[in-house]
Amino acid sequence: MEQQQVINNKQIVLKDYVNGFPKESDMILNTSATINLKLPQGSNAVLVKNLYISCDPYMRGRMSKSQGSYVDSFTPGSPIVGYGVAKVLDSGHSKFKSGDLVWGITGWEEYSVITNPETLFKIQHTDVPLSYYTGILGMPGMTAYVGFYEICGPKKGEYVFVSAASGAVGQLVGQFAKLAGCYVVGSAGTKEKVDLLKNKFEFDEAFNYKEEQDLDAALKRYFPEGIDIYFENVGGKMLEAVLLNMRLNGRISACGMISQYNEQGEGVRNLFHIIAKRLRIQGFIVSDYYHLYPKYMEMIIPLIKQGTISYIEDVAEGLESAPAALVGLFSGKNVGKQVVVVARE
Amino acid sequence: MEQQQVINNKQIVLKDYVNGFPKESDMILNTSATINLKLPQGSNAVLVKNLYISCDPYMRGRMSKSQGSYVDSFTPGSPIVGYGVAKVLDSGHSKFKSGDLVWGITGWEEYSVITNPETLFKIQHTDVPLSYYTGILGMPGMTAYVGFYEICGPKKGEYVFVSAASGAVGQLVGQFAKLAGCYVVGSAGTKEKVDLLKNKFEFDEAFNYKEEQDLDAALKRYFPEGIDIYFENVGGKMLEAVLLNMRLNGRISACGMISQYNEQGEGVRNLFHIIAKRLRIQGFIVSDYYHLYPKYMEMIIPLIKQGTISYIEDVAEGLESAPAALVGLFSGKNVGKQVVVVARE
Repeated sequence: MEQQQVINNKQIVLKDYVNGFPKESDMILNTSATINLKLPQGSNAVLVKNLYISCDPYMRGRMSKSQGSYVDSFTPGSPIVGYGVAKVLDSGHSKFKSGDLVWGITGWEEYSVITNPETLFKIQHTDVPLSYYTGILGMPGMTAYVGFYEICGPKKGEYVFVSAASGAVGQLVGQFAKLAGCYVVGSAGTKEKVDLLKNKFEFDEAFNYKEEQDLDAALKRYFPEGIDIYFENVGGKMLEAVLLNMRLNGRISACGMISQYNEQGEGVRNLFHIIAKRLRIQGFIVSDYYHLYPKYMEMIIPLIKQGTISYIEDVAEGLESAPAALVGLFSGKNVGKQVVVVARE
Repeated sequence: MEQQQVINNKQIVLKDYVNGFPKESDMILNTSATINLKLPQGSNAVLVKNLYISCDPYMRGRMSKSQGSYVDSFTPGSPIVGYGVAKVLDSGHSKFKSGDLVWGITGWEEYSVITNPETLFKIQHTDVPLSYYTGILGMPGMTAYVGFYEICGPKKGEYVFVSAASGAVGQLVGQFAKLAGCYVVGSAGTKEKVDLLKNKFEFDEAFNYKEEQDLDAALKRYFPEGIDIYFENVGGKMLEAVLLNMRLNGRISACGMISQYNEQGEGVRNLFHIIAKRLRIQGFIVSDYYHLYPKYMEMIIPLIKQGTISYIEDVAEGLESAPAALVGLFSGKNVGKQVVVVARE
């Protein structure tokens, strides 16, 4: 006889594939699902209680119908999936036991059965806020680390530009750039965010791209010598202006193009500068670099504890708030890393 | 008393900066210039008789008014400058003596005084056609070599696409790809060129891009598995279609974007695939790699002598024909490397 402990399991379900900007109404709160809190005998899965879920720009891509094999769509009618922090309640996998804290891909629901638990990271350091594992200690942190250090190979004194700089990734890239002895300028979309960049994250300069008539002129003002490293988070017109201002042998790490997620856009001009300036543009997917996670943790944990690195989260309370939080990413509503508290323990 | 040996020196002069497609009338034949065939005492220059001059797509950029420090414009009223093969008539430089054959940057004129002779390459192998030093044994050959081997790092069995494939660079890249055990498809703009690609240069497949309504569909037909390496020669719509068809970890070497030289174009869509497929786009300027020239010569000279590599030139006779030859590049009039004979010895 298997144990039965069936309870209610609230979920955020994708209604249908999304075109254009996502709306809250593209997602539905489903209050009628249930879950058995004991895994069936012989299962290799892990059953978790979700604590924090992460809203990340890449999720927009998964809301569309897949157009290739390299990006999986969400399944309409099923819960959204994404990064989160969770507590193991039951485990059929030798690597995990009840009570373990983990981060990785989970569901937008109160409880999830994770059938590929080998993708989960066990949380070792619990003397930092657990929500950090959706950001600075999770995928976005690794994205900043890999994109800046591994892809761009920064040298002391180089000029670094970060777009979407107050977001989960950008705020870290800017601080990593300062640690590497670079000059760093960030762009963001509100005065509040620009102030954060300058005062909290200690970027050398920051500007509100929405107040600039001419992005090329703005970049020339902040980078009279040009840009060595561009941490690409937005694409579109910003990339076009950046290409005009790159220096010889410049590097562009491309981990996100948030302006391109919701609309096809007009295309990017000025690509000829790739040749004229011998630029390297390197796309990457952070999960290809997860073998470096222990190395990153060794670097980042002391920096957090010493207060050398600042980190700002935008915390939404309750699973019900998740659709609005996700949608808000695409209008720049969040200030800092957008996270949703499902349960605190 | 210095020796005086002043003779007539025909020149092709740039009339004024060019906008849009260059026309023959943007260049003027100047028959009234003269030159002293003896260098003044104490000169460090080299005086050469020009034999072959090279028409290369990058020259279009130099016909426009310079917009940055990294590309020098031609000087209106002065002769066009570009790669060529020449014979030294007088030398004030210890590296060169009268009678030496050289290739490098020279003027579009019968005789040139080269004030930076350290940029010239002395021609060692004269048992191959001298005109080859404007192509397979010169800058375009090095471009193919560096772009394919150094930038793209080909592996056996990979899928390679070459645009503008019958041109000076493309025809070599395709043959290098075959030597490397790759599958290679080329595109060109006439049936004659497509036939050359398949029958002369032994590309696996080739197609006429002008006959394709849908470049994406054409690429899917020739690359059902996708493209690992794209040797970018054209930019624009072709690049847009290629991005849709690149495979994971694909590499794009960007050495030319001929479709972008004459018009600003509409911008390139689909850049998001750089991220999704972890692509690397690397711009390069071949002169940064000229230290590899001896290594390249060691490889290429035997391949030419054994007949392993085919090479086709489009030869225009006489300096007077140079403007039409150069302009023809941008409408794809040339078949193979466009070279102009100024004098045969």
